[in-house]
Amino acid sequence: MQPVMTGEEVMSLLDKVFPQIHQDGRVHEILSISSGTAVMRFTANERHLRPGGTVSGPALMTLVDFAAYVVILGHIGPQALAVTTNLNINFLRKPEPGPLIATCRLIKLGKRLAVVECGITGEGHDDLVAHATATYSIPPR
Amino acid sequence: MQPVMTGEEVMSLLDKVFPQIHQDGRVHEILSISSGTAVMRFTANERHLRPGGTVSGPALMTLVDFAAYVVILGHIGPQALAVTTNLNINFLRKPEPGPLIATCRLIKLGKRLAVVECGITGEGHDDLVAHATATYSIPPR
Amino acid sequence: MQPVMTGEEVMSLLDKVFPQIHQDGRVHEILSISSGTAVMRFTANERHLRPGGTVSGPALMTLVDFAAYVVILGHIGPQALAVTTNLNINFLRKPEPGPLIATCRLIKLGKRLAVVECGITGEGHDDLVAHATATYSIPPR
Amino acid sequence: MQPVMTGEEVMSLLDKVFPQIHQDGRVHEILSISSGTAVMRFTANERHLRPGGTVSGPALMTLVDFAAYVVILGHIGPQALAVTTNLNINFLRKPEPGPLIATCRLIKLGKRLAVVECGITGEGHDDLVAHATATYSIPPR
Repeated sequence: MQPVMTGEEVMSLLDKVFPQIHQDGRVHEILSISSGTAVMRFTANERHLRPGGTVSGPALMTLVDFAAYVVILGHIGPQALAVTTNLNINFLRKPEPGPLIATCRLIKLGKRLAVVECGITGEGHDDLVAHATATYSIPPR
Repeated sequence: MQPVMTGEEVMSLLDKVFPQIHQDGRVHEILSISSGTAVMRFTANERHLRPGGTVSGPALMTLVDFAAYVVILGHIGPQALAVTTNLNINFLRKPEPGPLIATCRLIKLGKRLAVVECGITGEGHDDLVAHATATYSIPPR
Repeated sequence: MQPVMTGEEVMSLLDKVFPQIHQDGRVHEILSISSGTAVMRFTANERHLRPGGTVSGPALMTLVDFAAYVVILGHIGPQALAVTTNLNINFLRKPEPGPLIATCRLIKLGKRLAVVECGITGEGHDDLVAHATATYSIPPR
Repeated sequence: MQPVMTGEEVMSLLDKVFPQIHQDGRVHEILSISSGTAVMRFTANERHLRPGGTVSGPALMTLVDFAAYVVILGHIGPQALAVTTNLNINFLRKPEPGPLIATCRLIKLGKRLAVVECGITGEGHDDLVAHATATYSIPPR
């Protein structure tokens, strides 16, 4: 499964179509899109933290939704507007302070549905902070 | 299953413990907590909208996580710090413009786990915009 | 949302198309199909029990998958062959001995996807033994 | 994360404690248990097939539940009786005829909860037939 857009192309598309993703600053970066996967880095700011410095659940869910969307766009191209139909997330451990890395993998890319599996770790750490699967509906092209 | 805190008590607890829930303004209100259920109203602002005026997926997930937390706190009381362990959400329809209502129901309140089912509708509408279940781990008391 | 088939019609369709659903005997009955819902009764036999008389997890998942299929067929009619794409289940309590009742509700019936919410209780009991949501893909007609 | 039981030890424990897992014959084999993972092979028989020779959804869910249980037992040992609290499965592709391989990975092994991620493929194939996550509650020891 080969990507049809680079990370730069996907981000510059999103900058135009979803400028509000940057409303908290450029906290989400696309590190890479390669065969069937995408990797993003998320640098939490005050908005995303709970007392004690833990990244909030909604910030993790937003990261999953974003990164899953990126891996799909990267493999189906800019014409398609996928919408999330299901997202299931397990919160596994309190993240260490510092940036988080989301690695998402397309486990199905059909004509109508795409399914993505994502793991989130602290940057430089192996243990999963959260794990999620998400399904997107792909409109007829 | 009778609540042990009112909506006002839960909100004033959250105001102290999680002041950042109001970082976008007072967009989330607790309308009621009664036997096994809680009802919240969410009034989206610019931050929560997608082009076309649709409320974003992350805003809906944040609403579910918040409302599920409210129904649990309302029934176990202020001493307990439940943490989300799993959240599963189905996005069903584009919401109409206007406030959203989340109705959450405790379907299990055990010693260690609480499970909540939530439906989200447009205020004054019957059709579900999203439906979710969420599990919280309740620390030993 | 009005059904287009009765419970008898759905069961006699399934008898023809999926005769193997009865391989353990007629353990699943359709009690009713009405606007947007279906109710089934499941009477476990030895195959479905764990030591201690508890109904097994797989038997509960089979019941959900079956009952969700029934409510969909009952509302889209015999021509369509829906396939399960996602099933999420929370196991809440050990069921009491005796028959189980599954009540499934269509929370979305779109052209391409149907989403169903199901609760399982012991017959004559209120507490949920399990709660599930399931998504089915509906092929183009 | 090192296992504390071999595949043979887990299977012989299950033979004693859950003899009914073999009610359809020895269709489930444990191929290996190693650091954090377990691999099982499932050879469907007539009971598990749909018209056209496809393995049924319930048979896939049973396989996931079984294999997830095996990886947990293999890492916590025989004294503990974990129970499934949540299972989420995405059905991705029709399996090819022939045995299926389930590969399950412990993504969290806490004191109270274990979370497992499982992929199912046809034996000798790479494409996922189904993907699941499951949570087990581990009773106090």
